[in-house]
Amino acid sequence: MSNWFFEKMEDYYQMGYRIEEKLFEETSPFQKITVYQTTHHGKMLCNDDLIMVTESDEFIYHDMIVHVPLFVHPNPKKVLVIGGGDGGTAREVLRHSNVEQCVMVEIDEAVVRACTKHIPQTACVFDNPLLDLKIEDGVRYVAETEERFDIILIDSTDPIGPAKPLFGTKFYKDIHRILTDDGIVVSQGESPFYLNHLQKHLATIIHDIFPITRFYNFHNFSYPGGLWSFAFSSKKWHPIRDMQIKRIQESHLEFQYYNEEIHKAAFALPNYQKKALKGLLQDG
Amino acid sequence: MSNWFFEKMEDYYQMGYRIEEKLFEETSPFQKITVYQTTHHGKMLCNDDLIMVTESDEFIYHDMIVHVPLFVHPNPKKVLVIGGGDGGTAREVLRHSNVEQCVMVEIDEAVVRACTKHIPQTACVFDNPLLDLKIEDGVRYVAETEERFDIILIDSTDPIGPAKPLFGTKFYKDIHRILTDDGIVVSQGESPFYLNHLQKHLATIIHDIFPITRFYNFHNFSYPGGLWSFAFSSKKWHPIRDMQIKRIQESHLEFQYYNEEIHKAAFALPNYQKKALKGLLQDG
Repeated sequence: MSNWFFEKMEDYYQMGYRIEEKLFEETSPFQKITVYQTTHHGKMLCNDDLIMVTESDEFIYHDMIVHVPLFVHPNPKKVLVIGGGDGGTAREVLRHSNVEQCVMVEIDEAVVRACTKHIPQTACVFDNPLLDLKIEDGVRYVAETEERFDIILIDSTDPIGPAKPLFGTKFYKDIHRILTDDGIVVSQGESPFYLNHLQKHLATIIHDIFPITRFYNFHNFSYPGGLWSFAFSSKKWHPIRDMQIKRIQESHLEFQYYNEEIHKAAFALPNYQKKALKGLLQDG
Repeated sequence: MSNWFFEKMEDYYQMGYRIEEKLFEETSPFQKITVYQTTHHGKMLCNDDLIMVTESDEFIYHDMIVHVPLFVHPNPKKVLVIGGGDGGTAREVLRHSNVEQCVMVEIDEAVVRACTKHIPQTACVFDNPLLDLKIEDGVRYVAETEERFDIILIDSTDPIGPAKPLFGTKFYKDIHRILTDDGIVVSQGESPFYLNHLQKHLATIIHDIFPITRFYNFHNFSYPGGLWSFAFSSKKWHPIRDMQIKRIQESHLEFQYYNEEIHKAAFALPNYQKKALKGLLQDG
């Protein structure tokens, strides 16, 4: 099975993608970065042998991390993306005509370089003049910046390697400080099935800092099990009550995944997930 | 990797489950049936090397095939299950106090025997006196029976092997005939991502026969990609407008997956799926 890439979940589950060719491999100071040409899923970026994006389904993750909060906040002008080195999150942010600036802080220039060369589908955003790409540590950036943001998107890997501090209280206190008074944060929220201990850990942190904390689900075929979550933390706007339905309709943006019904439906959690997060979800 | 079971999707994707032991293997006149003890997912039933159920996530599939239609129909008394040899679907049907009889028609006695011996979590239903288990061909049964049913659940494998005729117009015309005048059918509806040609094929058939045809989605971790659909076909009752909210609340049934919000949310389809099914969904 030499022409297969396998990602393992613990010692009990794995996913295999048939690959045609390894296009890129480099070990940066932070992680091993690989780009494969797959047989069916387009190009695929892996960090430390974990799939980050495939061209075939990246639209789902990027639609859901971006359009949910950007269609809740009534006028998002400044957006910060932490991580997201492939560019897909910033790409979707900058489709919103309200947005005047998107700052993206990616710790690893090698990810940006790999995607610029091999995955223009997401990396096309690096040519956008409204993008301010900073190659630096997101943890330090949020601790030190004097900027304020309407929306902050934590587009991180699991809490291993460089992403570990992104799952900490100090980080979220800094995030709270640099958010405007009606700001919203959306964070990669892990698997409610396989990684519910991490999801609960994140929920506990944001619950203590933000008055509105919810989780919402989406499908990500290339993450283990296919069901994944984002955490929605907000100082003021409620993810369903304050949906900007008129703005969705008037935006004339076309999405492959996101729509108004999907936005609302994503917040309906199955009972096992509600039970695991009991007492940690709050509506302000 | 000898202690791993792999299921392949075409030649481009596979899922691997670590297994401890093969508990059962038999080639019946219809298919190869295997039961494994997995490391993390409990016991696992495979037909022709395709995962049917694992103990760890079968609650999701069975909650969603059963409770959605049974909480739409105002008084489901007679239910027919085609396939579903593991017993999980019939088990959930018979938790509804309205139901007076559940007829289950499974073509392959070896599946029932394997599950009775090794997967009592689902096969426990075979002891229920309200279950009428018939080992025979479901296609012939629906063509010949004079019985009428309020709800019919097509709990089938993909359209290969014995399940192939279950994806045909003749079969659905027979289903229509043996349904009561306000009956509902729910059918295993394939993956909207990997198998959207099969989903569209099924949608085309039911669209021509039933006035109300919708699809709804759920997570099934052990099916390729994790996102799967059921087709909802109905002579009269609408899956959302006619939801029996009061009956859900008064049933006092506890579910690991299903709840009122999940019921509604499941019918919200992503744009790529809506596009693929354009013109084939109808609300009566």
